[in-house]
Formats: sequence, C-alpha cells, structure tokens
Amino acid sequence: MMDIGFLNGTFMPLEEVRISPDDRGFQFGDGVYEVVMVYHGIPCLLQDHLSRLENSARGIRLTLPFTPSDWENRIFEGVQRSGYQNCKVYIQVTRGIVPRDHLFPDQCPPTVYMSFREMAPFDENLRERGVTVITVPDLRWGRCDIKSLNLLPNVLAKQQAKEAGAFEAIFIRDGVVTEGTTCNVMIVRNGVIHTPESNHHILAGVTRKILLDLAKKESFSVYERCVEAKELFEADEIFLAGTTIEVMPVIAIDEKPIGTGEPGPITQKLWACYQHFLSHLV
Amino acid sequence: MMDIGFLNGTFMPLEEVRISPDDRGFQFGDGVYEVVMVYHGIPCLLQDHLSRLENSARGIRLTLPFTPSDWENRIFEGVQRSGYQNCKVYIQVTRGIVPRDHLFPDQCPPTVYMSFREMAPFDENLRERGVTVITVPDLRWGRCDIKSLNLLPNVLAKQQAKEAGAFEAIFIRDGVVTEGTTCNVMIVRNGVIHTPESNHHILAGVTRKILLDLAKKESFSVYERCVEAKELFEADEIFLAGTTIEVMPVIAIDEKPIGTGEPGPITQKLWACYQHFLSHLV
Repeated sequence: MMDIGFLNGTFMPLEEVRISPDDRGFQFGDGVYEVVMVYHGIPCLLQDHLSRLENSARGIRLTLPFTPSDWENRIFEGVQRSGYQNCKVYIQVTRGIVPRDHLFPDQCPPTVYMSFREMAPFDENLRERGVTVITVPDLRWGRCDIKSLNLLPNVLAKQQAKEAGAFEAIFIRDGVVTEGTTCNVMIVRNGVIHTPESNHHILAGVTRKILLDLAKKESFSVYERCVEAKELFEADEIFLAGTTIEVMPVIAIDEKPIGTGEPGPITQKLWACYQHFLSHLV
Repeated sequence: MMDIGFLNGTFMPLEEVRISPDDRGFQFGDGVYEVVMVYHGIPCLLQDHLSRLENSARGIRLTLPFTPSDWENRIFEGVQRSGYQNCKVYIQVTRGIVPRDHLFPDQCPPTVYMSFREMAPFDENLRERGVTVITVPDLRWGRCDIKSLNLLPNVLAKQQAKEAGAFEAIFIRDGVVTEGTTCNVMIVRNGVIHTPESNHHILAGVTRKILLDLAKKESFSVYERCVEAKELFEADEIFLAGTTIEVMPVIAIDEKPIGTGEPGPITQKLWACYQHFLSHLV
C-alpha cells in the first residue's frame, strides 16, 4: 500500500509528482479542487463531487479535460493502485502551464493533479465531546460558491481558531453567517434545523445536502435561509457538516456554551443517520 | 543569456525548476510575491519591492527566510547569471511543503522561488495611443493590501477586459474605485491629481508612490482619497500606474471617451518625469 499521485494521465508514487512553477495553480491559484473520501474501496458521493467540480470549473471558465466517466475510471484506478481500503482523494485542476500572465493562455491544456492518500484516523473523542468554534469576519472574495484554490483567508481563519483553542472558525459577513473555513454550519432551535441558504457566499456542501435530505426524511423541519450571527448564540444546538469531519457537534462559540454545553440530541440523531447512510453506500 | 530559476538557495536553468504539489502555493495560494524590473542590470526600486514583500509576508504571518541583503545578493546574482541587461524578476515565497492541511505547518521552511526572464519589449504604440478600460465589480477579498497569490478574481477580470476589447479592468467596490487588476488608477480633473487612498482594498503600488512624489515635485496638487466610480467618467485624464506598464494613459472607459479621447498633457508630463527618474536610477 502506498500514496499514489496522478499528473495529466500518469499514475506514479505520490512523492515523485513534480509541478512546473509556471503552473497557474502555483502563481495565481487559478484552479479548482475537490476532496473525496473513500470508504471500503468506494469513493463516497463521487457523482456529487464530480458535478461540483464541473460547476466550479465553469465558474472560473475552465474546461475540464475529462468526462465524468473518465474521472471515475481514473479515480477507481488510483484507489486500486494505492491498495488502501479507506483513503482520501484530492483532485485539483488548474489552467495549465504558461509563462506568467493574468490573461487566460491560448491553447494550453489544464493541469490535472490527484493524490490518493491513506485516510488519517479521525479522533472520535472530538465528536463525542463536541468542539468549540470562534466567529471571524468573512474577508473572502465574492464567489465562495466556487471551490477554488484561493484559500488564503480560510487558512488564516482556521489558524486563528487553533490559536484561540478552537476547532473551527465560522465566517460572518455583514452580520450574517456564511460557513466555516472547511465546512457548512447548521443550527437547531426548538427542534427545527436552520442553515444559511446557498448563494455566492457559501459553498453548497455535498455533506450539507445529504444531511438536509436525511433530516427531512426524519421529519425535521429544515429552513435554508439567511441566518444572522446572533442566532448562533441563541441556538439549542450547532453542528458543522463537511466531507472530512462529516457531522461535528459544536458545544461553545466564542467561549459561550451552546445549549447544555454538550452535543445535542438532534445533532446525534443526524450523525447516526449519516453513518447509516454511508454504510449503505458500500 | 538564458532564463534563470532560483529555488530555495539554488540557481538553475528556469526550465529545470520543479515544485512539489504539496507546496502550499499550489494548493492554497498561501504565499506572497513581487515583480521587479531590471534596467541596464539594475533592479529598479528594489528596496521598495523588498519592503513590500516583507509587509505582505507579515500580513499572512509568514516569516521571510532572507534578510534584505540576502535578497539583494541573490537577485543581483540571478540577474548576472541570466546575462540579461533588461529582465523581469519574479519573487514568490510560500508557506512551504507539507501534506494538505489548512493549519500552518509546524517547523516547515518556506519555499522561495524566483525567475529571471528576459523582458518582453513593451509596445510603446499602446502608450502613445492610450488604452481603453472597463469597470467591473470588485469581488476580491478584504486584504488587497497584501500582494498574495490569491489572484483568481484578478485573472477573471483581466480576461473579461480583453474580451471586451479593453486593456485593463478597474475594480469598483461599493461605488468606489479601488484599482486595476495589475495596477493603480489615477485621475486628473482641473489640473489636480486624485487617486484612491491606501487601505485594505488596494495595494499601495511602488510606481504609484514614485509618481505621486514626482507629481508633487512638479507642483501638482495630489489628493489620496476615496474616489467614487462616477468621477472616472468626469475626469479630464485617467492613467494607470504599475511596475510593468509604468504610466499608461486611458482614453476611454466603458466605451466612453475620457477628456479629448487622447492621452492628456499631465499624464504625458508624468510619464516623462518617470522616464527621467528611471534613467537616473542606473
């Protein structure tokens, strides 16, 4: 078993992949990406991730060089070559290699890079105890619905959270909740689930969508709407949703406890539903 | 004479430089950069560029691995190795190479990449005729005073300008002029020069600063202040200022002519002053 890399059609040991410094990913962040979890050899929700990759690429006017079935074949091959049953697939497409110029290059093939890495074991104690978060001003650009490589504000906010002893930072734009640095945010109040509506300021998460569907199936009321920052502090429960963290209970925000200060029952219910859902994918 | 690359202390032919895909520049745009023009073997305004690189690095909490004199020595060496009298130096520093994680890596040396490329001859007809520009909404993040690698909105706006038959796009944020995708903007009205004041929404350009100083020496009144978008359309002259384009007259904006529709006298005067200034640097 080994970490595998893929560059423009060729598989190789991950540590052998090398990129040109003229790649537009390196100098402009001119590209898009996805992260896909593989459980028991099966890439989880792959169609949703590929469809979002397509949307992100369209958002930056980049034509993906592969069809969905090309992607699928290559991803399955990468997983197989790695030998891992559980691994994390990182997919990145950039606008290619060309001497530095802001303008789109003419006739330049995009760079396709993928890595297939063993999945680090997730600290389940974290989920049992719940995590703390901070709020930070959302300084990101106006098209956060595009999963692009321009992630510096996310990096800075996530680090700020860590240094405040917190797990995650939640972005607030003009008094309104957008999302976490790497996840979506959901709140529960009086048994009802609320989450920021999809717009240009949030990435419509794959896990978010599944969870909202599962919640509806469980007969919870679900509202996708503008969520004000102050509602975070009035919530009975808050949880985070993302590909890597899946469902993560939040027990305090800006050092103020949420609800009882312990993971809430609806969060736990949805986490159980999500686990059940995942177990039926494979 | 040849294009030269520099990576973490080592000079090499530019085409031999290769980067790890785990470089945080490639996956997060987690780095900063500068572009320095070399005329007659002398890097132009190098101290200003190095000082801004330091500011940008501080802005993203990255410690530069070189002192100013380390940078100077390496830049002079690169220019010498290239053999070019006139060349363009690109300097990029990222937060290093580490398996993908938003959090800052522990004890990871930054990546220092430089390229020394022959300067492409500038089309002086463009400057003589003047250029046209468009206005676009400023969707960039809230810290444009940091010269970071998160340049996707600049790339998209510059391309939009090209497709509209224009040379450059000028960003408008909340009704206010910020800057171009790769330059600062100045307007002239009734013989007085106005330019957006330095704040988090613009990069305080090196050329901008020199030009404002030169204008003051020529006894022009200069106002650094909030410039409303509508003022662009009432200007007698508009020009762009940047390291690569130096001083560029704008003759139309959003297809509406500026002033007489030809490069204005104050723009031409400042361009002559800037040329004189450059000729005395070497």
